[in-house]
Order: sequence, then structure tokens, then C-alpha cells
Amino acid sequence: MGYPETAEGFMVNDQKKWTEFKKQEFPLKKFEDRDVDIAIECCGVCGSDVHTITGGWGDCPLPICVGHEIIGRAVKVGNAVKNIKVGDRVGAGAQIGADLTCDVCKADQENYCPNMVDTYGAKHNDGTVAQGGFSSHIRVQDYFVFKIPDALDSHIAAPMLCAGITTYSPLVRLGAGPGKKVGISGLGGLGHYAVMWAKALGAEVYVLSHTPSKKEDAMKLGASHFIDVNEKEWFKPLAFKLDFILNTADIMKDFNMSNYFSCLKVMGRFHTVGLPDAPLPTMMAQDFAPNGCYIGGSHLGNRPEMEAMLELAAKQDISSWIERIPLSEEGCSKAVQKVKENHVRYRVVLTDFDKQFGKRD
Amino acid sequence: MGYPETAEGFMVNDQKKWTEFKKQEFPLKKFEDRDVDIAIECCGVCGSDVHTITGGWGDCPLPICVGHEIIGRAVKVGNAVKNIKVGDRVGAGAQIGADLTCDVCKADQENYCPNMVDTYGAKHNDGTVAQGGFSSHIRVQDYFVFKIPDALDSHIAAPMLCAGITTYSPLVRLGAGPGKKVGISGLGGLGHYAVMWAKALGAEVYVLSHTPSKKEDAMKLGASHFIDVNEKEWFKPLAFKLDFILNTADIMKDFNMSNYFSCLKVMGRFHTVGLPDAPLPTMMAQDFAPNGCYIGGSHLGNRPEMEAMLELAAKQDISSWIERIPLSEEGCSKAVQKVKENHVRYRVVLTDFDKQFGKRD
Repeated sequence: MGYPETAEGFMVNDQKKWTEFKKQEFPLKKFEDRDVDIAIECCGVCGSDVHTITGGWGDCPLPICVGHEIIGRAVKVGNAVKNIKVGDRVGAGAQIGADLTCDVCKADQENYCPNMVDTYGAKHNDGTVAQGGFSSHIRVQDYFVFKIPDALDSHIAAPMLCAGITTYSPLVRLGAGPGKKVGISGLGGLGHYAVMWAKALGAEVYVLSHTPSKKEDAMKLGASHFIDVNEKEWFKPLAFKLDFILNTADIMKDFNMSNYFSCLKVMGRFHTVGLPDAPLPTMMAQDFAPNGCYIGGSHLGNRPEMEAMLELAAKQDISSWIERIPLSEEGCSKAVQKVKENHVRYRVVLTDFDKQFGKRD
Repeated sequence: MGYPETAEGFMVNDQKKWTEFKKQEFPLKKFEDRDVDIAIECCGVCGSDVHTITGGWGDCPLPICVGHEIIGRAVKVGNAVKNIKVGDRVGAGAQIGADLTCDVCKADQENYCPNMVDTYGAKHNDGTVAQGGFSSHIRVQDYFVFKIPDALDSHIAAPMLCAGITTYSPLVRLGAGPGKKVGISGLGGLGHYAVMWAKALGAEVYVLSHTPSKKEDAMKLGASHFIDVNEKEWFKPLAFKLDFILNTADIMKDFNMSNYFSCLKVMGRFHTVGLPDAPLPTMMAQDFAPNGCYIGGSHLGNRPEMEAMLELAAKQDISSWIERIPLSEEGCSKAVQKVKENHVRYRVVLTDFDKQFGKRD
């Protein structure tokens, strides 16, 4: 076999042995008219990859090849594809399909399509399991393939395809811009983007963090204020001050939600894109009453937002803070452990795919 | 003593004996330039009254006179009062003061003023404890005194001052109107208003209820659809359908929040004005991801909303569904027990205050 029937990837075979990756062959879905095949050049490592392989988010099909921050070259495009041609440098994120015909899709909310296809772990119509980007190739519906602006380096762009859009979309939808005071809770893989986007969009950024040693990074990334939430009454000076808070931390069990809520303007929102393994802290309906606030979340962003984000990054020269690790069984293992242990500032990108898979165009 | 230094009211002296009311005298706060004294004619009985006297919401100052759905006549107005004159028929709700100078108040959000004064249980600046409307008189800051349109009967208007505005304000703020599909969860004291307002504002109303026997009432009140949430898959046909849900139930412990959330459009809101004694059901951040939804709540409404609501009720002849109970020690006791046991369709109003306190104008 081999491409175009199959691809090769670094796969986990057992959630109990999530640090063990093996280079294995897997089948690609049947090629359709709107599909684009990407020969992968590099791939970011996301918190979701770790939640999936460790079982933190529950079972997943095995073996699994994770990775959904993908940059590569289009090497084959279906007959109905208009936006991409062979040879284009493109990206794909955490979603590779949707029906594009339902009311949700028609409202430009394809990232919530009830028939969405996740980049890995989802079942395609033909029964194959979608496998992610720690691999030689991926087959993606054209609507979820994005041209990468020339000004953006591939390694820098890769993590934007998931971590970037996950923070960019809610910031834009909640109105980050000039005159707005935005709280960014947590300064990690997601948070470092949130600070850069919010700043680039013109907002005044307040970083709320449990890690005082990150203050310098926060300021370099664009924050105007750094709040150490270990301090006893950290929230008092912020009462009714923030237009919204974007939470990017994926451990929230010790959050006193009332304290966070108290920082919001009337009808302000606490929006979480961090997705902890554990439930949210216990809340009372009364906790919303002092300022009529809301808590909620989101999933990725839509295509126009992805394009706008990439353009913003290119135009304002926004550069992901990354560590590069060459792709290999050991490299994957090291990368996911670093992410799990929160020892990354701020994203890991797996590189040198040609050394594992050869030139593929 | 006696009025204007003191008033008389039906008071609870012990949260363990919350069904025992005694007619007692209590001091009124020092009269100030922006105060209005109301000789009370009738007063609605609110779920909050019961949560307070039973200790469901925690301790309260004792003795306490509850009641914050007040209609009466203005019998004394301060020198600085412009909107009210002696003899006006007026109402007062669950808030009787705010600083009116802070940023929150200036933004027409005085119902979230950090210096708000609750109608009962709050401490005035002069140290007196605010006492509510199961009483002869109440002294209220002018901004929280509302003229009652002639077309509205006093008994009908009374519960609008709290239950009415509590549901009207979020409906308006969340955009209830033509073309909108609004879910009203719970059909009780708050819910029956929510249905009437949502219908009057032009929305299509879906009542979500655990009590199938209330279907007929729901339809009479203006609902277009009645959903029995005891049915196993009640939420399935509503996927992505509702613009928002206003929850009015004050018992939510058995709610499967994911099921409710699944009924919302992308970025839709589950807004609760029910304030249970118990915490909200356990939620995961992931529960928001399928449609990017939010959960939140609110507290009362602002003055323009209160005026608009009373006008809407007068214009569209919206009539509260009430049971009248004459004011007395036994009457108060019976009324709060009926509310506690959820045996009211849909509000209780204490009446015949003149028989207890004489003519007071």
C-alpha cells in the first residue's frame, strides 16, 4: 500500500502507555471531490492531544495519531476544490469537515456543525478513523484548508491553526478592541496567543495568573497589567472593571468563580477555552446576581475568523513562542510529556517531517 | 412613637419559626430629601421572602418584615423629589436605594450598584434595618418609586414590582421579540410572567416544564409550545433551535444542563432568574463547546425597564394570575407556606391593609 491509500504516522496504541509512540501505517478515507491531501511539513502539539492520549477526556479509538496544528503542501486536490491548488502551502486545524449545508453552517458557524469531523478520532462516512498530523499526509475537506500567508513561517504558523483560532475567535466575538479591558486568565499555550491577539486588536490586557514568574513574559507579549491571583484580595481593585475574561487555564478546580465574576462589568462574560478534565468549580445561581454575568465557552472558530487571524499575524508580525522538536518516536514522547507537565513556553512544534517521510511532492 | 418615626409590620422573629408572624413596631430610617414614604395598600409574596425567612439563603437580621412587591400611596415626599407627589399611587420593588453616582449607576445599571439597598434586611446609613412591605409604611429613595398606570389594578400590579421586572428585564436584554424563539423553563410565580412578557414582546414561546398538568395554563398565558422535560429525549427536537432560555425554576438540582444547553442556538444563553438554595448542577467546561453557549443570571432590572414593563402591562392588558389573602398574622403564615409548597398559581398578594393599619393618608 502507501500513499494515496494510506499514510504513516506516529501513533499511540494504549491510553495507559500514552508516552509510547510507534511509526505505523493507517488508511486514509476515500478521496472525494472536495478533498485536499496535505503532505505535512510540521505539526504543533496541543493540550487536546494530551487529554486524548491520556484518556483525560475519555476513551478514544486506538491506535490514534494525534496532532491538529498542521502545515504542509497541497499534493492532491479534488475536482470540486476551488480555493486550493497543488503546491500551495496550507494549514489545517482541529476540524477537517462539516456538512456545510445545515442551518448552523449556513450561519457561518461551521465550527458547531452537528456533523463536524474532528481532525483525529472521528469516524468518516466510509468507516475509516480520522488520524491527525503527527503523520506523513492528511486528507481534509477544502473548506478547512487554509492558505498560509507568505510572511508567516511554517513553524510559527502551525500552532495558530488550533491554539490561535481557539483564542482569536472568542476575543473577536466578545468585542476585544480599542477601549476594552480584557482579562486573560492563565498564561500557557492558549494564553500567550490570547494576550497577543487581544493586544493586536487594540484592547487593554490584564493577565490573571497563578505564576508570578510569568509576569515578564506577559508584559513582553503585550499585557498592560499582571495580576497575581494568589494574592488574597487580588480581585478587589478590579471590581466591575473588565469587559470580559477569557480563561485559557485548563486547571480550574481551585478557582473561586465569584472572585473572577466580580471583576466583570455588568453582563460581562467569563469565557473559558481551557477544557479541564475535571468539572467546573461548584457555582450558585446567586454568583451571577451581583453583576448579571455569564460563564460559557467556545469551540475553535469559523473560516472567516481563521483567515482574518492569519492575516493579522502576518500584518502585525505576530510570532508564536515555540520550541521545536524533530519528529520521531522519542520526539513525540518528549513533546507530549512537556505539554502534560506544563513545561513549555509556550508551544511545541514537531519539525523535520521530511527526515521521517522523505520528500512527498 | 408611631409613624413617621416608626411603622408597624408582620414580622418573623426566628428562622426556625418562619411560619409565625407577629404584628410589631419597627423604626423607619431617618427621612432624607430624596425619600418617599408609602402607605402600603397591598403587597405580593415572593419566593425571596420564603428563602429569607426560612434561612435558605442564609442568616438575616431578626426580627424581619419581608415583602417587596409593594403598592400604596405616597404620603410624604422629600424636598428634592421631583417624580412623585403626595397622593400618587406608586409601587416599590426589591430595591429601595443606590448611590446613583457610581459608574454602574451612571450606566443605567443601578440594579447592580455596589451600594444598593435591598428592600428588607439591608442596613441603612443611619444604622436602621430596612423592613419590607408586610407593613403599614415604607420609606424609599425616589428613584425606586414608580407611578402605577391607572389601567393597572393595585393587586395585579403588586407582584410585577419584583417577579415582573425580574423576568421582563432579561427578556428585553436578551432580545425577546418578533422572530425569536424563547424557552421559558419552569412555570411558577416567575415563569407565568416570563411567558406573558415574551409573548407580549412578540417572541415565540416554548415552555419547558416538569409539570405536564400546567400545559393548559402555559397555552393560556401565551406559549406556542409546551415541552414536558420528563420525557426522555425532550431536547432532541429542539437542537440549536432556541435563541435563549430563561430559567425561572428555583429547583435545578435534577437539571441535566447539557440537555438544556443543546436547545440553544450558537452563542445562545441559558439565563437563570431562579435562585435555588442549592448549588447549580455540576458542569464541565466541555458542556459549552457544542454550541458556544453561556449560563448566567441577573438581578431585577433598571428604572427604564420597570417603567416600560408597567406601560406594556397597561397597554396590552396583561394581568397577573393571583390569589388574594387578607393581611393578618394568619394570612402571612398561610401565604408563605403556600409559596414554599409551590401551591400557588401563580402569585399571592396580601390585601386589606387598611383593616390592619387604618386609613393612612
